[in-house]
Amino acid sequence: MNALGRQILAEIHGCDSKVLNDITSVEEIMVQAALKAGAEVREVAFHKFSPQGVSGVVVISESHLAVHTWPEHGYAAVDVFTCGDSVNPWDACNYIVEQFRAQNFTASETLRGVLVETNAHSEKAVI
Amino acid sequence: MNALGRQILAEIHGCDSKVLNDITSVEEIMVQAALKAGAEVREVAFHKFSPQGVSGVVVISESHLAVHTWPEHGYAAVDVFTCGDSVNPWDACNYIVEQFRAQNFTASETLRGVLVETNAHSEKAVI
Repeated sequence: MNALGRQILAEIHGCDSKVLNDITSVEEIMVQAALKAGAEVREVAFHKFSPQGVSGVVVISESHLAVHTWPEHGYAAVDVFTCGDSVNPWDACNYIVEQFRAQNFTASETLRGVLVETNAHSEKAVI
Repeated sequence: MNALGRQILAEIHGCDSKVLNDITSVEEIMVQAALKAGAEVREVAFHKFSPQGVSGVVVISESHLAVHTWPEHGYAAVDVFTCGDSVNPWDACNYIVEQFRAQNFTASETLRGVLVETNAHSEKAVI
């Protein structure tokens, strides 16, 4: 199936709480995940919450990566959204899981902007 | 079911291509969507692509909103991720659909960080 983008939603558990609560580490891991997957980083925005938790997003040429951490639960919600064929979102996801020292995770992939043929001239539309 | 967050993935079609290609409009709509849903805006990062398209994210205290637009297809991929009970992600989603002047959209809601009871003392863990 032809689509404009692919998005992974990852539920990451049993993480190192110290890593999840350190905004510098979380930002560095997310940016490195983007780079290791071959993405081009455009914008970075992270925020540290009180008393704990980090939220942040890396906007890439190929879409974005997002993270929200709950150190008190050892849990992180991670999204990796990529478009085009040059970047594999699973490369970024697996790197993040490893760097968060997760005990386990579940993840699902969703296609975004699915293209279909609309007429005999093979024009494409997004459904 | 008790969860830390709710995430809407919206596929928005038949949008006004001029709006989708105007970074100022897209950013304003996404920020207003967050505010109208009662969220607190923390960080904003948007990028305009050449020749067309806008990507951007609004980090809120309650998680984030993200958008990627393909003006050539009249299509936008929108995520609204909220945690807590004070913000309804559908309020933001519906506002965005209206402001993009969309002809139609599909959307799904996913629970993030589902909590379960782990022992007789009713401690909660994230599954």
